[in-house]
Amino acid sequence: MDNNLTFYAGIDGGGSKCSAILFNHKGEVVAQGIAGAANAARDLPLTLHSIVSSIKLALKHAKLDLESIAQVHVGAGLAGACVPNVKAQLLGWKHPFASFKFASDLTTACYGAHAGNDGAVLIVGTGSSAARMQKGQLCQFGGHGFVLGDKGSGAWFGRKAVTATLESLDGLSAFGPLNKHIVTTLAVTNTTDLLQSMISASPSQFAVLAPGVIALAKQGDHCALALVEEGVAYLDKLCQRTLQDTDLSIVLMGGLAPSLEPWFSSVLRARIVKAQAGPEWGAMQLLQSHLPLAC
Amino acid sequence: MDNNLTFYAGIDGGGSKCSAILFNHKGEVVAQGIAGAANAARDLPLTLHSIVSSIKLALKHAKLDLESIAQVHVGAGLAGACVPNVKAQLLGWKHPFASFKFASDLTTACYGAHAGNDGAVLIVGTGSSAARMQKGQLCQFGGHGFVLGDKGSGAWFGRKAVTATLESLDGLSAFGPLNKHIVTTLAVTNTTDLLQSMISASPSQFAVLAPGVIALAKQGDHCALALVEEGVAYLDKLCQRTLQDTDLSIVLMGGLAPSLEPWFSSVLRARIVKAQAGPEWGAMQLLQSHLPLAC
Repeated sequence: MDNNLTFYAGIDGGGSKCSAILFNHKGEVVAQGIAGAANAARDLPLTLHSIVSSIKLALKHAKLDLESIAQVHVGAGLAGACVPNVKAQLLGWKHPFASFKFASDLTTACYGAHAGNDGAVLIVGTGSSAARMQKGQLCQFGGHGFVLGDKGSGAWFGRKAVTATLESLDGLSAFGPLNKHIVTTLAVTNTTDLLQSMISASPSQFAVLAPGVIALAKQGDHCALALVEEGVAYLDKLCQRTLQDTDLSIVLMGGLAPSLEPWFSSVLRARIVKAQAGPEWGAMQLLQSHLPLAC
Repeated sequence: MDNNLTFYAGIDGGGSKCSAILFNHKGEVVAQGIAGAANAARDLPLTLHSIVSSIKLALKHAKLDLESIAQVHVGAGLAGACVPNVKAQLLGWKHPFASFKFASDLTTACYGAHAGNDGAVLIVGTGSSAARMQKGQLCQFGGHGFVLGDKGSGAWFGRKAVTATLESLDGLSAFGPLNKHIVTTLAVTNTTDLLQSMISASPSQFAVLAPGVIALAKQGDHCALALVEEGVAYLDKLCQRTLQDTDLSIVLMGGLAPSLEPWFSSVLRARIVKAQAGPEWGAMQLLQSHLPLAC
């Protein structure tokens, strides 16, 4: 096959979106495509759809024929990919690509952040989790999902703020700026409407509320500040556990990381470094044989 | 119709079970039947099935023909019955009874607890919620469901204990008696198995873990005690809000109430009274025209 017609795609799939970056045979970035949610444990059919859509979009942006998808080698980092029954289904996927390799989004984020070298990451977006890659071994901490964990994540901040607002509407606490932010953003005025609006909401719908909570904390609102302090205390502890007994550095990633970083302890901040490459580049590295498929 | 062949059933339907008590035309208890979960907002088809099953069981225990179900007038108090779209579906149900009236489980619990008079209740079982009935008006507080509320409930205690155990297995805290209770009860040894076992668990599956948590708190385990203190602080506040600006008394109901009562504030305990009748009796009262259908 003519090398010039071979492409590589790196996928970064999470609870809110799926990003594909298309590379040519020289490893140069050709185009990017962004599609819907890709948490494989939460909704596998949607995840597979998002992967294909994001690659098709990247091909389109590169003005390439959609049929050339069959010449694309795909490496994907996906939230939830390591849950045993999910992994089994992903291995059996009849994908339309030249080849398909996957690992957890933490693995590919680590590969990208430290350019394939040992290091740690904290991802704080819709969910939250941390991991370190050391001698080809991925050790994961946190990331137990919306119902049981993901403290300090966007979904967690959103859910905590909605719960606080329901309590305030019940008259258990004063109705303050945090509660006003929630009812205004969701365009509701009472308990019934707020419940109806959020009782079956997805983690990403909750996560939409998080930046407003953090902004209020920065302005000194004590309810929002209490949530940020609780979330950050957990994330800080999670990072220190991840780095424990190592001399690794850590990269902070995900939509909420920049706004939460100032609240982290100085001990932790001393070990934070900037990412060397994105998770899509890390995912593309799965296609190189020398890196292990840590999953 | 011969009055002797007419029966009345009172239903108390919640997240864990559905209880039916069959009364004769004189209002005397004939028999009881207990079937599966009946949270109408969570699973309506299962709820309808549980209602019919519990009445059939009661008829069977009374050695009555199952066909006599057509002569039974049914009053039901159901968790989630007042959620607008659930209420609409319940109103349209083609039931096999002589008649069917329903209200929220809080309404019928209040009717029963205070023998049809004004008063308040706190229900702490799988979920948690409080209400007061005053001049035919039901005012509800709390009870926002597993994801957004129900603090201090069995499901909440179970979920909090599982989350604490996941953090402990991550090495974020010491592995103590509370965590040992969780892994032993669920027969798991690591994070993956614990997540696999509980990530999609129902509120009642979480609630199964609660009595063990409360027992550990009584033995002085500080992790369990912290959870009980957090849950009780909320429930106490919820009750005081429910009683605010009234001289009503309050009845504590639900599986967890007896074990939590000793932790409540003395201000609140001074207003706690014993129930005069059960929620099934209260549900049967829905069939009397003089009591309003508060939903």
